[in-house]
Amino acid sequence: MLNCALPPTLQWCDDALHILDQTRLPATETVLRIDTLDAAIEAIQALRVRGAPAIGIAAAYALCAVMRDRQQLPPAAFRSAALEASAALAAARPTAVNLCWALDRLCRTLDQRHASAAQWQLLLGTATEMHTEDRDLCDAIGAAAVDLIQPGMTVLTHCNAGALATTGIGTATAPIYLAHRRGIPFRVLACETRPLLQGARLTAWELQRAGIEVEVIVDAAAAGLMAAGAVDLVVVGADRVAANGDVVNKVGTLSHAVAANHFGIPFYVAFPYSTIDRGCVDGRAIPIEQRASSEVLQACGQPIAAAHTRARNPAFDLTPAALVTALITDRGMIPRPFAHGIAAALSARD
Amino acid sequence: MLNCALPPTLQWCDDALHILDQTRLPATETVLRIDTLDAAIEAIQALRVRGAPAIGIAAAYALCAVMRDRQQLPPAAFRSAALEASAALAAARPTAVNLCWALDRLCRTLDQRHASAAQWQLLLGTATEMHTEDRDLCDAIGAAAVDLIQPGMTVLTHCNAGALATTGIGTATAPIYLAHRRGIPFRVLACETRPLLQGARLTAWELQRAGIEVEVIVDAAAAGLMAAGAVDLVVVGADRVAANGDVVNKVGTLSHAVAANHFGIPFYVAFPYSTIDRGCVDGRAIPIEQRASSEVLQACGQPIAAAHTRARNPAFDLTPAALVTALITDRGMIPRPFAHGIAAALSARD
Repeated sequence: MLNCALPPTLQWCDDALHILDQTRLPATETVLRIDTLDAAIEAIQALRVRGAPAIGIAAAYALCAVMRDRQQLPPAAFRSAALEASAALAAARPTAVNLCWALDRLCRTLDQRHASAAQWQLLLGTATEMHTEDRDLCDAIGAAAVDLIQPGMTVLTHCNAGALATTGIGTATAPIYLAHRRGIPFRVLACETRPLLQGARLTAWELQRAGIEVEVIVDAAAAGLMAAGAVDLVVVGADRVAANGDVVNKVGTLSHAVAANHFGIPFYVAFPYSTIDRGCVDGRAIPIEQRASSEVLQACGQPIAAAHTRARNPAFDLTPAALVTALITDRGMIPRPFAHGIAAALSARD
Repeated sequence: MLNCALPPTLQWCDDALHILDQTRLPATETVLRIDTLDAAIEAIQALRVRGAPAIGIAAAYALCAVMRDRQQLPPAAFRSAALEASAALAAARPTAVNLCWALDRLCRTLDQRHASAAQWQLLLGTATEMHTEDRDLCDAIGAAAVDLIQPGMTVLTHCNAGALATTGIGTATAPIYLAHRRGIPFRVLACETRPLLQGARLTAWELQRAGIEVEVIVDAAAAGLMAAGAVDLVVVGADRVAANGDVVNKVGTLSHAVAANHFGIPFYVAFPYSTIDRGCVDGRAIPIEQRASSEVLQACGQPIAAAHTRARNPAFDLTPAALVTALITDRGMIPRPFAHGIAAALSARD
C-alpha cells in the first residue's frame, strides 16, 4: 500500500472542531481544538485554516461546537444565538464567499418549532454533509483529470490548491494524489509562490508527507525548466472563474500560463464548479486585490529591502481563457475553446 | 541638480582598495579597506564585491595594494611576487572570466628590466586605466539606450546589472541613470529576483539612493503587470551572449522575455561588448549552472520549507535571440534580427 496520508486539515471529533494550524507549517504540525466563538474567529482571521472550501467547513463545525452547550436554551433563543454566532463567524473574513455560503446553508436548517437539541442535530448533520460533499467534490475533480498524469511525467503547480485548502485531496492536487494512489511514478515541481510562499511551505509539505516526489523551485525558474523540456503539464487552482473561462488565481499563474503556451505545454486549471461566477462575462471585470507591500518587502518575517523601499503587491492575476488547455471541474473536464461559455459546455452534458 | 549619487562600489584611495560590502546591503553601508591578499580573496569569495566588471577592477586594485609595500624587493623578485599574488587572486572565483582577464592585463605590464617602483607604477596605472574604461563603457551603454526611456514610462528590470555590479552606472541600469540625469520622470519596477534577492536588496537600494522612483515586485507579478499595461519596456543585463544573440542571464529573465513578447512589450538586453562569446554559435551550448538547493529553501537565512524538502536551483536561463527586441552594447544598439550574428552587425559599422 502506497503512503498517501492526507494532512489533518480539519475534523469534527470529541464535540469540537480540530484544525491543523497552517501558520505553524512546515515547522510544526500542531492540531488546535476549537470550541469557542473567539477561538474560531481568531483561527480564521489568522489564516490558521485557509482555502475557500476548508474555511467554509471549519466555520460550519465551529458553529456546531459553539452551540453544543446551548441546547438547554429555549428553541427560539437557541435559534437567535446560533444566528448571532453565525454572523460573527461570517464577519471574520468578509470577502470569503464560501464562508458566508456555508454558514447560510447551516442557518437555513434552524427552526424554532423544533427542540433546541433537534436544531443542533440538524446543524451538525448539515455540517457533516457539507464536509462529505467537499471530499467528494475533490475526488470528482481528481477523477476527471487523473489520466493526464502518465508515468515519468513532471507536473508543475503553483501556490496551494491542495489538501490543506480543502477537506479532501485538494483541487489542483486532486489528480496528483489519485495518480499517486494508482502507483504511477511521476514528480511534482512546486513553485514556491512568493510573497507568502504557500508552494514551498504548504504544497511541498503535504505532497512530501503523502510520499509524492516533489521539488521546490523559485517561481521565476518555471519558464527555463519548461524551455528545457523538464515540465510535461501544469495544473493550478482558481480563486474565481468567469463565464468565458478567464481565470483569476494567485499571482504568478499568468506567467506560467504564458510560458506554457509559448513552449507548447498543456496548462490546466482545476476548481469546483461553484467557483464559476456566471454573472461575470469575462475576467476583465474581476478586481485584482492589492495587498500590503510589507508582504513583498519581507520573507519569513525578515526584511529583504532597505527601509522605506516601496513595493507593489497584486495578490492575483488574470489568465485569459485562450491560454488554458482545459478546465477541470467536479462535473468533468471542459476543453478549450469555451465558445458558448463554460456553464453552457457543462449543462449541454446534463 | 538632481540627486544621482552612485554607490561607492569600489575605489582606490589612501594606497588601498576600498569596497562597499554588498553582503551587508541594504541594512548597512559599510566600506572595507583592503590591502592584504587574504582580505582581497575573502572579499571576492564572500561576494562582498560582485558583478563581473567590478570583480575585475577590485582584483586589479587589490594587487596594487598588496604589492605597494614590496617595492623594496629586487625587480625580478617583485615581478615573481606579483605573479604569485595574481594567481592567488585569480583562483578566488575560478569561473569569473573578467577576474582572470583583468589580472592578466596587469601582469603583462610586469617587466623585471624596470625598477620595482616603476613596475608598481605600471600596475597602478593599468588598474586605473581599466577602472576608467569600465566607467566609460557603462556610459556608452547608457548613451546607446537612454532615448528608449520617455517621460511617464515604467521600466522593468531583473536582478542587479547595476552600478553595484560595475564601477560606473551599471549595464541594464545605465539608460536608467542617464534618463534620470536628464530629468525625465519615469519609474522602475525591480523584480526581487529569488532566490538571492539581488533585485530587492541591491537594485532597489541603489536606484532609491540615486533618487530614482522604484518599486519592488515579486518575480511572478511581472506578467500580470505587463498584461495590465503597467510596463512599457524591460531592460536586463547578461552573463554571456552567444554569437547569434541568445542571452544567458539570471534565472527569471526568460520568463520576463516570454511575457514581454506575448504582451508586445519591448525587451532589451544591455551588456559590454566583451560579454559576447564569439566561439559560441548559439545559446544551447552554454551550460546552465545548477546551484545549491539551500538557496531556494531559505529566504534571508530562514527556512521556507520543511526539513528534507528537495529543490532545484538553476541559477541562469537562456533567452533565445528571437525574444529580444534589441541588444544594447557599449558599441551601440543592435536591433533584431541578428541574421549574420551580432559581431557582424557591429563590425559592419566600423
